[in-house]
Amino acid sequence: MWRPLEIAILLFDGITALDAVGPYEVLAMLPEAHVRFVATERGAKRTARNGSLALVADHTLAEIPRPDVVLVPGGPGEAAVRRNPDVLAWLRRAHETSRWTTSVCTGSLTLAAAGFLDGVDATTHWSSMDELAALGANPVPERVVVRGKVITAAGVSAGIDMALRLAQLEAGDDIAMAIQLVLEYDPQPPFDAGSPAKAPAHVMEMIQDRRRRRSGT
Amino acid sequence: MWRPLEIAILLFDGITALDAVGPYEVLAMLPEAHVRFVATERGAKRTARNGSLALVADHTLAEIPRPDVVLVPGGPGEAAVRRNPDVLAWLRRAHETSRWTTSVCTGSLTLAAAGFLDGVDATTHWSSMDELAALGANPVPERVVVRGKVITAAGVSAGIDMALRLAQLEAGDDIAMAIQLVLEYDPQPPFDAGSPAKAPAHVMEMIQDRRRRRSGT
Repeated sequence: MWRPLEIAILLFDGITALDAVGPYEVLAMLPEAHVRFVATERGAKRTARNGSLALVADHTLAEIPRPDVVLVPGGPGEAAVRRNPDVLAWLRRAHETSRWTTSVCTGSLTLAAAGFLDGVDATTHWSSMDELAALGANPVPERVVVRGKVITAAGVSAGIDMALRLAQLEAGDDIAMAIQLVLEYDPQPPFDAGSPAKAPAHVMEMIQDRRRRRSGT
Repeated sequence: MWRPLEIAILLFDGITALDAVGPYEVLAMLPEAHVRFVATERGAKRTARNGSLALVADHTLAEIPRPDVVLVPGGPGEAAVRRNPDVLAWLRRAHETSRWTTSVCTGSLTLAAAGFLDGVDATTHWSSMDELAALGANPVPERVVVRGKVITAAGVSAGIDMALRLAQLEAGDDIAMAIQLVLEYDPQPPFDAGSPAKAPAHVMEMIQDRRRRRSGT
C-alpha cells in the first residue's frame, strides 16, 4: 500500500529554531512528503533566544511511532531532552524501522544518548565535539556525516546542507537541485567566518570569553 | 533613556518559515536586541508547506508601533498581506521612525505596495522580479540590496545573509562574525544550483513546468 514519506521533526522548549526550520523547508518540498512536528506534549515550544519565538508541535510522539525520517534538532534545551525517558523510548522504537535517523547541531548528543552512535562517526556543533565523544560517538569535523542510515549535521545552519543531502539520497540529484533553487540557496555571507578554522582568533576568543562568564567558570 | 534594539518580524498565514527564522537566529544574537513576532492578530500562523508548521505571533501590530527594525518575510500568503490595509498602515507608520526596514523573498512586494520602493533598487525571489518591477521598484539581481535604511533580500535562504549584513551595519564586523560562527554558517550545499544562473536548465524547466501545471496556465 502506498503511503507518503512520513517525516517527524522533534520539538522541545529551548530548541534552536533554525535547526528545525532549515531542514523543514527542504524536506517539506520532497515529493509526497508529510512533515509532522512532534513533541512529548502538543503545543507551542519556546525557542532558545529569550523565548521570543514559539514553534507548534501538532502531534505527540505516540501519534507518530514509526516515521520514515526522524530529525532531532539541537539547542540549549537538548540537555533535558537527552535525559527524557519518553523521548529516548520513542527514538529507539522509531530507529528500528526508520529509513533515515538524523540530527542537527547538538541533536546528535540525543542520538548518542539513545545509543545510536556508539563508536560511530558523527558530528555536532563545533563547541560540543568533546561532549559527543564523551557520549560514545567518534566526532568527525565535517559539515554533514552520513553513516548508514544515520545522518548528523554540524551546528545550526548545517541542517540545510544536511537536508539537501538527504533529499539527494532519497529523491535524486534533480529534485535536490530544484529544492535548492526554489529556496534560492546560493549562500553569500558577508564574511568567511563560519567555522573555527576560518574565523579570526579574536572572534573565537570573544565567544569563549562570553561563554565562560555565563557559566561562571 | 537607554532602550533595547526592538526588532519586529511580521508573521502571517502562508508565510515561508525560513524567511523569518533565518534572520531571527541572526538578529536575536545582537547585543541588547529584543525580537518580537507580530501579526494583525496574536496566535499561531500556519506556514506555506501544507501548514505543517505554525509560528506563534506573541504581539499585535498595535503593540509594537515603532520598532527599530522591521522585517517582512515572504511566502504564498504575502499576496494577501500586500492588500491588507492594517498591515500597510502599520508599515507606513513604523517606516517613519525605523532604523532599518527590511524584507526577505517576496516580502519586498509588500514593502513596494506600502510605497517604500518607488524607483528604488530592491530584490526578491528570482521568480518574482517582474512583479517587483510592476509594483514600482527597480529589481536588482543581487542577494542583498542595501539602499539607505531599506534592505531587501533575495529568496528564502537569502534572509540569513541579509541579517548578517544588517548585524555588521548595526554592530560591526566582530559581532557579525561571532554570530556567523555561533550559527556555524559555513555553507556547503551538495550542489551549486542555488540561483537561476547556476542551476542546470533542465532543473529550472522542471520547476517552471510544475508552476504552470499548478496555476493551470
